[in-house]
Amino acid sequence: MDDSDIRILSTGTALPGSPVDNAALADRFGMDELWQQWIDVFVGTRSRHLSVDLATGEVTTTLADLAERAARRALAGAGLGPTDIDGMVMGTATPDTLMPATVNVVADRLGINDIPTYQLQSGCAGAVQAIDVARRLLLTGGHRRILVIAGDSCAKHFDLKADLRTMPPAELVNVVVFGDGAGAAVLSADPAPGSVVIRKVITRFTGLGRPPGQVVEWFGRAENTNDRAAVAEDYKAIELAVPEMAREILDELLGSLGWAESEIDYVLPPQLSGRMTKRITERLALPVAEEVSCVDTTGNCGNGLVFLQLERSLDRFERGDKGIAIAVESSKWIKAGFALERL
Amino acid sequence: MDDSDIRILSTGTALPGSPVDNAALADRFGMDELWQQWIDVFVGTRSRHLSVDLATGEVTTTLADLAERAARRALAGAGLGPTDIDGMVMGTATPDTLMPATVNVVADRLGINDIPTYQLQSGCAGAVQAIDVARRLLLTGGHRRILVIAGDSCAKHFDLKADLRTMPPAELVNVVVFGDGAGAAVLSADPAPGSVVIRKVITRFTGLGRPPGQVVEWFGRAENTNDRAAVAEDYKAIELAVPEMAREILDELLGSLGWAESEIDYVLPPQLSGRMTKRITERLALPVAEEVSCVDTTGNCGNGLVFLQLERSLDRFERGDKGIAIAVESSKWIKAGFALERL
Repeated sequence: MDDSDIRILSTGTALPGSPVDNAALADRFGMDELWQQWIDVFVGTRSRHLSVDLATGEVTTTLADLAERAARRALAGAGLGPTDIDGMVMGTATPDTLMPATVNVVADRLGINDIPTYQLQSGCAGAVQAIDVARRLLLTGGHRRILVIAGDSCAKHFDLKADLRTMPPAELVNVVVFGDGAGAAVLSADPAPGSVVIRKVITRFTGLGRPPGQVVEWFGRAENTNDRAAVAEDYKAIELAVPEMAREILDELLGSLGWAESEIDYVLPPQLSGRMTKRITERLALPVAEEVSCVDTTGNCGNGLVFLQLERSLDRFERGDKGIAIAVESSKWIKAGFALERL
Repeated sequence: MDDSDIRILSTGTALPGSPVDNAALADRFGMDELWQQWIDVFVGTRSRHLSVDLATGEVTTTLADLAERAARRALAGAGLGPTDIDGMVMGTATPDTLMPATVNVVADRLGINDIPTYQLQSGCAGAVQAIDVARRLLLTGGHRRILVIAGDSCAKHFDLKADLRTMPPAELVNVVVFGDGAGAAVLSADPAPGSVVIRKVITRFTGLGRPPGQVVEWFGRAENTNDRAAVAEDYKAIELAVPEMAREILDELLGSLGWAESEIDYVLPPQLSGRMTKRITERLALPVAEEVSCVDTTGNCGNGLVFLQLERSLDRFERGDKGIAIAVESSKWIKAGFALERL
């Protein structure tokens, strides 16, 4: 146990509606069986949850809805009420509005008041950044329990009028890769016997001189949403760089804690898509670690993923078990991760 | 001097183009002399800088452009290069894109790499939140100099096709109140004799049960930018609440440091508009404090304002002088501020 250790008191997650499988997507967009097979083989994502009703196009769920649900579950899991929380940190790439920040809408709904709130604008590394800021709030004193939330919704960009048959593959893949979801956790610096502890957090911008691997735009009132693509990826660059970056952050975490690869019991890898996650865990090559993944059924729900993985793994940690969680943001190449241990 | 004190090594700011006065706005939008007088009396903002060319509608400057310029000036002011910075924190309500976060684009342009970067999504309180996160990075060790940036650009929402004559006043006022700009500072926990020190930072969400005073939307590819208003304010609620909230944060800062009102030499008040700032400083009623304001000539450039005020005041602090900076975000009612002292 170290002075800079932070306890995870609880987690909670939320996904909108029922899972939407590839057949349902194909049916909605008028695509054929071959297309479904293409997704299975080259993307490896079988289903996802969407904040949009595929039949009507209506937005059924906001990011605040998802974040609120996840946060309520985390609070209930820790047996805490709104006045027990003395800080909130949220990470997302897709806030419901530019102002107010979604974290403040969620605070209001939860009955939380009079505390500092922060919302980090970030891609998939935002969950780790949020955990990092929460950790620093706890370590600098004056705060005992921080509610961390992370999640994303692609509802505003999910265009049901799109013609998938004329869409270039690099754009088309976005329709199947992403899903919506959010997660939350209550973190504390106080002793909490038996809880899983965050031993170390690293987040590192490495985008110097590198073009972005992913760009997600927003449009203002003075613009036309048809003027430019909203989402652009360089999947070749991503496929090349992400496994390597994941390996680097693993090495840095292990090195800083003096942990051996053979000591790692659980690995929570980056979750761009089912296929990509496989490539990454191969590159990590941890000899005995059990992989905790969910992207094949949840889709890539951005900042929500780390918490979906945490929720699926924390109960499995036995006393002394160690874990590594890694997130990579390909927008401007941020590598991030943290080390877990049940003490 | 206290262990939790943070030094401001330097500041830098950037405003796009030449000042645009009310006559130029009136001319561009076909408004008359009476309208100009109305702005002078009821808004009190005489000019602003815009990232949009009024003649052509072309966006001349991005937020990254402004942030980069401000950051370069701050780095030069501290005599530091890119490798001297080991963390970046930015605050904005109007990032250029959702991904990458603008802070990472700026890091790349400045030649900064391999460090943690954070971008806070926030209205006018974002500059204080960014200073707060930077302070906690410095206090938790491992970081010696943090580059803090804050700014906003309304370019994407600045609609030159708008007909001001048919626009309701609550919407029209946005055209004259806001301006674009950014600021930066280098903060350090190391001793820096003669520098102005940040003694205390407070940021506090107080939006429980209160409707937002300001909403700023973004539009996705699947939407139509004409479907809803992009910016909405409840100016009556803002006029009523902001002076009171500013007073509360002043009291909390003074109380926590044991400072008397009569000790405050400089006050950097919230800067919604020229007229509003006057109401706020009257409510603060600091007996000898000199007011440091700029909104009447810069417009409300959101998160940039606090740094514009810092740049205009730091050199004026004599040894032992004390100052209070206050920012209020009316979107979901965040009050924030910090205390300054030259030791």
